[in-house]
This record gives sequence, C-alpha cells and structure tokens, in this order.
Amino acid sequence: MQRSEPQDFSRVLSSMCTVPHPTAREAAERFLATNPGDPGTYATVSKLERQAVDLLGEITGLPDAAGYVASGGTESNIQAIRLARNRADTRTPNFVAPASAHFSFHKAADVLGVELRTAPLEDYRVHLDAVAELIDPDTVCIVGVAGTTEYGRVDPIPALADMAHDVGALCHVDAAWGGFVLPFTKHAWNFADADIHTLTIDPHKMGRAAVPAGGLLARGPELLDELAIDTPYLESTSQMTLTGTRSGAGVASAAAALSELWRDGYEKQYHTARSNADWLTAEARDRGFDVVEPTLPIVTIDFPHALIADLREAGWRISRTEAGEGRVVCMPHVTRPMLEAFLADVDRLA
Amino acid sequence: MQRSEPQDFSRVLSSMCTVPHPTAREAAERFLATNPGDPGTYATVSKLERQAVDLLGEITGLPDAAGYVASGGTESNIQAIRLARNRADTRTPNFVAPASAHFSFHKAADVLGVELRTAPLEDYRVHLDAVAELIDPDTVCIVGVAGTTEYGRVDPIPALADMAHDVGALCHVDAAWGGFVLPFTKHAWNFADADIHTLTIDPHKMGRAAVPAGGLLARGPELLDELAIDTPYLESTSQMTLTGTRSGAGVASAAAALSELWRDGYEKQYHTARSNADWLTAEARDRGFDVVEPTLPIVTIDFPHALIADLREAGWRISRTEAGEGRVVCMPHVTRPMLEAFLADVDRLA
Repeated sequence: MQRSEPQDFSRVLSSMCTVPHPTAREAAERFLATNPGDPGTYATVSKLERQAVDLLGEITGLPDAAGYVASGGTESNIQAIRLARNRADTRTPNFVAPASAHFSFHKAADVLGVELRTAPLEDYRVHLDAVAELIDPDTVCIVGVAGTTEYGRVDPIPALADMAHDVGALCHVDAAWGGFVLPFTKHAWNFADADIHTLTIDPHKMGRAAVPAGGLLARGPELLDELAIDTPYLESTSQMTLTGTRSGAGVASAAAALSELWRDGYEKQYHTARSNADWLTAEARDRGFDVVEPTLPIVTIDFPHALIADLREAGWRISRTEAGEGRVVCMPHVTRPMLEAFLADVDRLA
Repeated sequence: MQRSEPQDFSRVLSSMCTVPHPTAREAAERFLATNPGDPGTYATVSKLERQAVDLLGEITGLPDAAGYVASGGTESNIQAIRLARNRADTRTPNFVAPASAHFSFHKAADVLGVELRTAPLEDYRVHLDAVAELIDPDTVCIVGVAGTTEYGRVDPIPALADMAHDVGALCHVDAAWGGFVLPFTKHAWNFADADIHTLTIDPHKMGRAAVPAGGLLARGPELLDELAIDTPYLESTSQMTLTGTRSGAGVASAAAALSELWRDGYEKQYHTARSNADWLTAEARDRGFDVVEPTLPIVTIDFPHALIADLREAGWRISRTEAGEGRVVCMPHVTRPMLEAFLADVDRLA
C-alpha cells in the first residue's frame, strides 16, 4: 500500500537528514521490534550492527573498526569526549574545538563537566596557532570537524592529530555529515589520513539510513572500554553506549543503506549534490548575492534577513548561519527542479 | 504485504520491550523520515510529541506536563540527574538511589561526574533510614524506583519525596517499565501521589510504542531549562534533549500507542499480565521452586543455574537477577500458552 508521507521534503533545504533509501526504509520497518542494546535477546540485529560498523570502517580507512551505531552525532561526540576524559588523569579536564564545531560539543561540555575551549577560525577552518595556545596539560581531546555544519569546511585534521599526540590528548573528528561525501574528495580527514582516535559518522545523514543511526568509531576497542558500565540483569555483561535500549530499526537500516550504497551509490549521490551546489552558487552570484565558496555541498548565501523570512513564509525550510546567511544543504532529496523553484521564489520575493 | 519478523518473540521472557501495537507500528513506519529534534523543519511530528507528553501527563497525574519523548529510560534518568546537578550549588554533588536502581544510574554517575550513593534494600524496597544516612548538603537528587527492573517492586515514593524536600534536593522517580501498569494498582508513585520533580516513563516498554520512545516528565518547564543548549543554526533556538537528531518514528508511535491504549487498553493488558504472573508463580511453587512474591507482573524464580543454562540452550531468552534467580517479565507478547510451553521445558530439563 502506498501511503502519503507525513513529511513533505519538497521545500526542505535546512535539514542534514533526508528521505531514507528504500532498502534502508524496508530494513527499518522489519526491525522495528528489536533492541540491539540487549544483544543476548536480540541476536540478529546485533550481527547487522557488526556489519554496519565494518562498512563504516571501510569508509573511514579503519580495518577492524571498533564502534557502534549510536543514536546520532550528538551521542557520538559526547561519548568521544567522555572516553577522553575518563582515560585522562586530571580533575580539571578541558578539550579544544573549533568555533565551527557543532553545538553538541557545548552539550558534551555541560553534560560531562569538561571545559570547552573554542578556537577561532581562519577562512572557516580552525586556526592552528590558536589551538596550540589553548592546549595545556589538562587538555584531554582536540576536536577537528570534517564538514562543518554551517559551511561544510574541513579542518586540517592531520595537523590537529599531531598536536594531540604531542600532548598525550586524543584527537576526535566530527564527520557526522561529511563522512559520506569526503571519500570522493581530496581532503585528509579519516583514520588512514591521520593518527586520530575517534570519529563520528552518521548513516542517518548523507548515508540515507533511517533515523536514529549515528556512528561512533574508535581506532581500537580498548578506547571504548572507558565507556563500559556493568549490566547485571542482561544476558550480556556490559554496555558502552550512552543509551540503553536502542533502535533496531536504525541499526538495520544503517546496515542496509551501507551495503546498498557503498561505494558507487554514495559516489553518484555526491557528484549530484556537488553539481547542484555549484549550480546554485553560480545562480546566486549571478543575482548579486555573496556566496561562501562551497567546499562540500553546502551553500551559504548572503540573503537579506527579510528575504529569508519571506522564503520561510512561502514554505521553504531554510536555516541561517550564526552570521546570518541563508543555508542550503544539498541533500539527496534536494533536486535541480527543487532549486529552480526555490530561485523562482527568491526572484519573486527579493 | 505480510513479511516475516526478523525477531521471534515466542521465547523471549527477558525483555522489557515487546511487539509494538499495530497502530504504533503503522505510525512509526509513516514517520521514519522525520526528526523532532528540528521542530522548525519537522513541524507535524513535533505536534505529535506534545500530544504524547500530554497523555503521559494524564497517566502520571500531571496536568500541563513538561517533558519530551526521549531515546529511552537511560536518557531520561541521565537527564534527571543532570538537571538536579545543574541547579544545585555544589562542586561535589551526589545523589542517592536504591541498590535496586537500574544500571543507567551508574552510567549517569560516570557521565555526569556525580557520586552515586547506593542505599540498601529491605524486602526489595529501599530502606528509608539508610537513605537518610546517605543524604548530606551536597545531595542533589533522591531517586525512587516505581517498578524495579529485577523484581518489579515500588519504593516508598512519598516518603522519598519528603526527604528530598527537607534537604532542598530533587526527587526523581524511575517508572520506565512500571508507569504503564501502576495506574491500575494501589501504589503511590506519581506526580499526584507525591511531590516529586521528575519521572521516567517509557512508551516503548509496557506502552507498546516502537523503540526508541522513552519519556522524561518534569513538574514544571523551568526544571528543563537547566538542560537547554543554544542551537544557532536551527530554526528553533535551543534544545533540552540529550540527543540532537531524534526519532520521529519513536515519537509518532508513542503518540499513536498512547491515544489508542490509554486507558482501557493498558488496563486490560495489565490484568492479563497480572493473571499470567500469578499463574506462573503458583505453577513454579507447585514444582518446589522459590518465587519472590510478585508485586507487578515480573516473576523471579529460584531456578538452579544449570537449569537456566539449559533453558537458554533450548532457545528461551531468560535473564537472571544479580542474586541468580531466573526472571520472567510478563510483557504483552508473553501469553499463557507460551508460559505453558516454557514450564513444559522446565519439567523436561529440571
């Protein structure tokens, strides 16, 4: 039976989530009544989780990856800072992250009681000298972003990893959104490119899995031991995830999407998104708007505030950067005809 | 199309999750591609979340409930301790919880850096004098459990709430599993029964929603303000949840299950579970096994360890208490014929 979707994506330019791939949707529906948080009871979905983590390892240059399918990027980022904090020997821990880092790092700082030191940017990437100045013996982690939320920029990950190693801190990379587009670019971002410890990569963003399917990867399983809590009444004996009961739908749909789309499907999807981003950039510049040069397929256009308000009024879901630009995330559901319709409304309302 | 379920529940006695109600499953499938963590973009599912919270408020005696649909009981318990910690004025916070409290409170202690002081039990309920001895001026929260994970017991919630008020701490009730059976008992457990501040109640357990659908409720919205983090790039401005992107499937299925089953459906389900628990208790005692008298429909039977191993070998998913008893959670999928088949295997293997 074909049902109407309760969510209309035809005007959604703001979201980093998208319509799941049909194979991912089917897997999510089949595994709705499973809980990978209880692997003794729900064995089938636990095997799928191992498969998903292996494929995420392939994408990120990490054979024999340790990790799990998390509730999303926020959980993965919190967990990365948590394990860095737990293995460090300080009562006043801090971590350093770029000003461009996702707000989940502010959440992590509050939740975990770890001071967040924000490093300023230079051309939308973290300023390395500023990072160096913020590091001290209580620094437990240095964060780099591979595909920033607002501008899609990629921090100099290898240099950040080197700085972390020099002070005995961990290096965590947030590639929650970027992880499924970066393999098709020349950027250095993953476990093969740099000596990083942990990485966030979310199948439910560009990976086309159903929500909730985030990913936390770690270079070695011993890093995740810092997160383990005993689970007396389950058939399994410990748990490293932040949540307890977890979504089998998310895990199964991540495994299905990754099996289906890595690598050719994701590559094709990247080139389409890239082409749309370049086209939108050119069209916006033709109309006299400033556009921040896109590195990955996120386009930020310096629309007047009143125009953004009018576009929202017209039904467009468009978000704004902190600096005020309108932000268009070229997700798989964002097609050329959709962008044409958007620009027609821009022309009408500007 | 009828598809086979990847998860066979016909021998699952260990789980606190169950087969979702058909209405809840249908809603989960429809809302798979939505994210209530971004309410500006995904408005429809956000309305359903408000509806779910209102109904959870009805169940827990809290008109105009504040709260949200969480990823599960672990998130809700962490968040309750987090908000208690954040509003308190101490650098060395602690909280007091019964020895019977779910392992998520140990996780909360580690994640949040709040000391967990465990109070011993008396007849499977928390010992009030022991709680009183553990409290000090740095105590930010006192936890009571309404339906313990292992034995289904209900702590003396009103007395715990009074103790919390006396020292200016919050009182949090974990009714993650029990919240959907307690309304049909004479226990005092909710916002109407006691001056508690926060409560965990999970639609994806006895509420028959699809995973992930937990619930965190708070007596007033100002309590949740302690959790708010700014969200610069979203159309909304702040976020109080622990995760960022959230499952629209979970939210929609919680709303659907609650609308469908509260109150008559849950009441009928409770009486069936109760009847099965009483029957199983009598049958086990007839066979000479000790059974901890069930308060809510969880039956713990003092099977020899070798018998539990043999039952698992025969395909039964049965968990063990820390004390070693076999534990049968009388969930909606646990029918009388299923328990008869289980006892036949007990007789065969004992």
